[in-house]
Amino acid sequence: MEQYFEIHPWKIIERGFSKERQLLAESIFSIGNGYMGQRANFEEKYSGESLQGSYVAGVYYPDKTIVGWWKIGYPDYYAKVLNSTNWIGIDIKVNEQELDLAECNVEEFVRILDMRNGLLSREFLVEFDNGNCIKVETARFISMARAEVAAISHSIRALNFSGILEISPYLDGDVINQDANYGEKFWEETARSVEEHEAYLMLKTKKLDFHICTYMSCDISTYQEMELLSREKYVANRYVINIGEGEELKLYKYIANSSSRYHPVEELVKVCREKSREALDAGFDSLLAEHGRAWAEIWEKSDIKIDGDLAAQQGIRFNIFQLNQTYNGKDERLNIGPKGFTGEKYGGGTYWDTEGFCLPFYLGTAEQSVARNLLLYRYHHLEKAKENARKLGFSEGAALYPMVTMNGEECHNEWEITFEEIHRNAVIAYAIYSYVNYTGDKRYLLDYGFEVLAAISRFWAERVNYSERKGKYVILGVTGANEYENNVNNNWYTNRMAAWTLEYSLEVLDFLEREYPADLNKLKEKIALSSAELQKWREIIENMYYPFDEKLGIFLQQDGYLDKELLTIKDLDERELPLNQHWSWDRILRSCFIKQADVLQGLFFLEDHYDLETIRRNFHFYEPRTVHESSLSPGIHAVLAAKIGDYEKAYEMYLRSARLDLDNYNKDSEDGCHITSMSCTWLAVVHGFGGFRVKEGIPVFSPCLPEKWSSYSFKINFRGILLSISIAEEGIKIYNESEREIIIGLFDQKYRITGKSSITKK
Amino acid sequence: MEQYFEIHPWKIIERGFSKERQLLAESIFSIGNGYMGQRANFEEKYSGESLQGSYVAGVYYPDKTIVGWWKIGYPDYYAKVLNSTNWIGIDIKVNEQELDLAECNVEEFVRILDMRNGLLSREFLVEFDNGNCIKVETARFISMARAEVAAISHSIRALNFSGILEISPYLDGDVINQDANYGEKFWEETARSVEEHEAYLMLKTKKLDFHICTYMSCDISTYQEMELLSREKYVANRYVINIGEGEELKLYKYIANSSSRYHPVEELVKVCREKSREALDAGFDSLLAEHGRAWAEIWEKSDIKIDGDLAAQQGIRFNIFQLNQTYNGKDERLNIGPKGFTGEKYGGGTYWDTEGFCLPFYLGTAEQSVARNLLLYRYHHLEKAKENARKLGFSEGAALYPMVTMNGEECHNEWEITFEEIHRNAVIAYAIYSYVNYTGDKRYLLDYGFEVLAAISRFWAERVNYSERKGKYVILGVTGANEYENNVNNNWYTNRMAAWTLEYSLEVLDFLEREYPADLNKLKEKIALSSAELQKWREIIENMYYPFDEKLGIFLQQDGYLDKELLTIKDLDERELPLNQHWSWDRILRSCFIKQADVLQGLFFLEDHYDLETIRRNFHFYEPRTVHESSLSPGIHAVLAAKIGDYEKAYEMYLRSARLDLDNYNKDSEDGCHITSMSCTWLAVVHGFGGFRVKEGIPVFSPCLPEKWSSYSFKINFRGILLSISIAEEGIKIYNESEREIIIGLFDQKYRITGKSSITKK
Repeated sequence: MEQYFEIHPWKIIERGFSKERQLLAESIFSIGNGYMGQRANFEEKYSGESLQGSYVAGVYYPDKTIVGWWKIGYPDYYAKVLNSTNWIGIDIKVNEQELDLAECNVEEFVRILDMRNGLLSREFLVEFDNGNCIKVETARFISMARAEVAAISHSIRALNFSGILEISPYLDGDVINQDANYGEKFWEETARSVEEHEAYLMLKTKKLDFHICTYMSCDISTYQEMELLSREKYVANRYVINIGEGEELKLYKYIANSSSRYHPVEELVKVCREKSREALDAGFDSLLAEHGRAWAEIWEKSDIKIDGDLAAQQGIRFNIFQLNQTYNGKDERLNIGPKGFTGEKYGGGTYWDTEGFCLPFYLGTAEQSVARNLLLYRYHHLEKAKENARKLGFSEGAALYPMVTMNGEECHNEWEITFEEIHRNAVIAYAIYSYVNYTGDKRYLLDYGFEVLAAISRFWAERVNYSERKGKYVILGVTGANEYENNVNNNWYTNRMAAWTLEYSLEVLDFLEREYPADLNKLKEKIALSSAELQKWREIIENMYYPFDEKLGIFLQQDGYLDKELLTIKDLDERELPLNQHWSWDRILRSCFIKQADVLQGLFFLEDHYDLETIRRNFHFYEPRTVHESSLSPGIHAVLAAKIGDYEKAYEMYLRSARLDLDNYNKDSEDGCHITSMSCTWLAVVHGFGGFRVKEGIPVFSPCLPEKWSSYSFKINFRGILLSISIAEEGIKIYNESEREIIIGLFDQKYRITGKSSITKK
Repeated sequence: MEQYFEIHPWKIIERGFSKERQLLAESIFSIGNGYMGQRANFEEKYSGESLQGSYVAGVYYPDKTIVGWWKIGYPDYYAKVLNSTNWIGIDIKVNEQELDLAECNVEEFVRILDMRNGLLSREFLVEFDNGNCIKVETARFISMARAEVAAISHSIRALNFSGILEISPYLDGDVINQDANYGEKFWEETARSVEEHEAYLMLKTKKLDFHICTYMSCDISTYQEMELLSREKYVANRYVINIGEGEELKLYKYIANSSSRYHPVEELVKVCREKSREALDAGFDSLLAEHGRAWAEIWEKSDIKIDGDLAAQQGIRFNIFQLNQTYNGKDERLNIGPKGFTGEKYGGGTYWDTEGFCLPFYLGTAEQSVARNLLLYRYHHLEKAKENARKLGFSEGAALYPMVTMNGEECHNEWEITFEEIHRNAVIAYAIYSYVNYTGDKRYLLDYGFEVLAAISRFWAERVNYSERKGKYVILGVTGANEYENNVNNNWYTNRMAAWTLEYSLEVLDFLEREYPADLNKLKEKIALSSAELQKWREIIENMYYPFDEKLGIFLQQDGYLDKELLTIKDLDERELPLNQHWSWDRILRSCFIKQADVLQGLFFLEDHYDLETIRRNFHFYEPRTVHESSLSPGIHAVLAAKIGDYEKAYEMYLRSARLDLDNYNKDSEDGCHITSMSCTWLAVVHGFGGFRVKEGIPVFSPCLPEKWSSYSFKINFRGILLSISIAEEGIKIYNESEREIIIGLFDQKYRITGKSSITKK
């Protein structure tokens, strides 16, 4: 952990040029708009260590799997979000000396990410070997207002010389994915063109036929000569300028970047040309202003203010900023990769992170359609999920949602995860429950929800087996959320969530029978649901085995957990942490140490089914044995700790989550930011400290104020009503920003708040 | 299963030219002499599907590992036995038409492996497109009398034409390993030379610096012109002959093939030249005669005769033949690869197969030094075994022998095997017990044995942990011999063998204290063995947990076994077998089906510790659930079935083992023969039907006669005395072939047999 970036309520600031932190800074200063994203690579040449990354949402490549030892059921490919045409590049020569930031002397370097406005800017001095000095100022953003547009402003001032300046804005499609399994290149060129102040590249993926067109339009303050450069996968305008001492050259580079996911291939160039020229016509300042207004709207709904703790303030805003850069919820074919657009690790596919951790953030801060689109994403993958199950030997109709996917097909290939981490299937069901509980959109159950629930329930009904010895249904051979135990029997979390899925499916069925009997009959026919099946579901619910220890009064992580040596983290030498960087895998597996919430994840989801004392006992048993080596863990623990009144622990857990990337807590943010974990930070504040839940259709709060904070406030978008909740030492204030009346719960009382008014409580 | 080869007591015979069975025949007709081996590739060009394989013992390459998901503790490389210079090749042209057996019309093809004499021969007619016909007759062998020498005789008769015959014996070092992980070539040339009737190639591995020199000397009956061909990694003599109709051309190719493992690099050429020329001088027939005498000596000690069942006779001889071709026990740096010299699968490294299954064969049929060399092999790897353990986090002094190895370092990289299949460690200890029990060589314990035992015991003492819940020592997270369950807790076999290792170590310690007190003290000092450690070992022995089911009266495969759906193989659809080709891995893992003996493997090793009824109960519970998808399984079950008097089952199991490769039972002998399993066939006959054991220093027998056999006989080399045991309907005869008297046990009685005499029993 190192606090390298300056603390500021709205900005991330880097002062000084640090090559060894360039990879980290590239991740932290990443920008994006949900359609595309860009690591904070320099526009200028940089031959130092760097992960060049320009990503376009939903464009991926089925990279040939690496498997040491093949197992039946493994997928043939691992789909990867693609590094695509580098559109930021600007090459510079000063009196024939090449500007390479890794080689020149760079001084007074400042890089700033203005989160309020979504603007990345830099300024610095460069001294060349011959003593020539220039000052560079750049700014860039990816427009929140125009999906496929980005803009760069770049200026160079000749500080102590006059001479020849060459500046070459370019597009370079000859890129690789750093995570390519066999070092292959994934793109081929289909067209390119370069004209005065304009150029484009059209690339096509070697498989699956995704096309991307990248178009640039340049506006330069002056130049004497221009050369058009073109070679395979590369186009550039080279401007030659006679620059006088003290003079400044200003270049704007406008980009349109779009894919065949949004336009017919044959129209891509035309669309991009229009968008790029429109951007040029509008100009940088005007584009930036509309971009800033779009960000203001986002912040209006999702900002969290913390007073008295600047580091926490910066941390939570950084998390909210990145979540909004990654996913905007407008396209039901998109989802949230674990690294968003900030890196390639984990392939950029969809994990259970979305339903397990991210959904509440989008429910709480965005339009209802956003969460609905996340659900529809899985609905559209239902047939693929059934295929996944069939590949493992399950019957027609049973669905196993994938561990990692782009299009619904499983991409992962470790048997203990691909085949066994089946708890993921339950959160797909739980997300339906959450969405309906939050929004009240019960019609969704008929139109889409129940079909998914039934297919998942069918999976569970086949995946259990009856143990004669126990006289119960058991679930053997699973890996729970705690990936530090593999292939265990009767993981409580999996067993409980499986049974819960069956319970909820039956409950939904009852509801549909009451409300939509005719439609339901059609649906039952469509999916050939029999009453024998429903009977089996009931039987499993009644006879599910839940490992439990009477003496300790806790649910067991798995059947064999108590045979382990029951140490706690205090028994470990600090130098052994994180365990995954110091212990052999078998030692980790045999140990009692838990990677992330597992029994506690279940209690987090199903808190209403258990009394506080049960939750407390389990928390106090498992938390001291949890190493939180998944970034998804601390936030969940913060919520539970707040619930059982352990505010100190809740705050400790919040801190681990909030500044995870900014302070590079796990020493791995160089690979990209932990985007999906960022919603856990939001959960820690809103569900944890704020005590926010939706119960019986009403938003309820039971806030507490962390000791270090003088006050904090957050917003909740509940069924079209924006609530602003402020918690200070003086008291709690809930303001209804809408015109409509709302009933809310505060601690154990209900209140009616009319439009544009508030309640307060000391 | 297909009985393709003709049945014959001493020969394997293939009649007819079958391209689709060429890969299988290449495996089956493989020849070798313990130093080198060769698949039955054709001398002539064959452009059809083929696995070209020329292997030299102990020469390997550290091929870069393929790992999808790296775990701490994985090795960087997987060592592979190398395909090396092709020394058999002879290219042929007839009137400018190339002879390619895949393209020409081949008739009257006969291939014969004469196992008695170790000779592979072929004859066939070839008709070219232009109607020219030739008759080809070839024979080759790898000398059992001259370690590094092989010889080929090759004749061509012009049947219906006269014209130009070109014949080019060559050496080709431009070969690949089919199993290369990244398609790399492993060899580089260091020298080559070609002269009249002679040529050589010197190659060096790109890593580890193994050098191989291959030298050929040719003797041709006539020729008109000769050309010397030479290019990188290739040398040849091209002879041009004017051949008249009906005339025959005869070529002899003598090979010396040796490596830097046996000679200094700078002398390799000289050594090989001498050996090759000596072979030429001796001539084919004379070399073959001495080779035949060497085989006669081997058969004299190891032959098993079966009357009344020719298929069984051929099967057992094929097994004995291949075992002797693979390992001759003269070099303590060598071991027995699972495919011997017949293929590349499994990399040719050493597995627990050697100690678990092969040792008894070599103890029973060869000089004592052979088994001793197998033990010394592991003794020499002790330091590497300690390194393996340290890599996983164990203390200095604890040893974990590898799952797969060439030099003692672990090569395998699946966590559930590499880290968890630790039962392998126990058979290294058990082999010491077996060897000492068989040979009486107790001095071995002081000189080498105890050091290995102590290091393995130290591993177990750290690998167990105390379960407070059970009040016992448990062993968590293991994979037993049954690889169809992974990462289980308290695998009975592992727990029992671990405790047995500790018991035996203490027993040996007692012995050494009595017999060699001074030496022992030095040894204890050397390995820093403390009495606290010994106390811990005792405590573990006394408190080891053994999963057991009272109701069924059986030991449990593992803690969770009885929670599974307890089907038997009869419940399966035959089309689902073998399971590993039809079921997803997770389905296999969750099922009750067992790949190979596991609890029963323990009862096989430790039969003296359990009463017959216990063995019978466990056998009857587990055998119906065992799919025998490891070729190592049926032989062990045959021994146990015979022990409990289930002779029908014993015979069924014997059959599955004996003709596994000849009848391609598992449809995978194309990759190579199952060499290590072949000793299980021997075990089935000698320990199974023959009921042979060594008890209290005496060989004892309790034979039975399988119903289908009229009689059978086998030999046992016991402490320098060769015994011949014949079992027929008329009775049992044990003949002492030596001059010395011996006491033996037959059923429950002891007999004294003087030299050159026998006892018989009706």
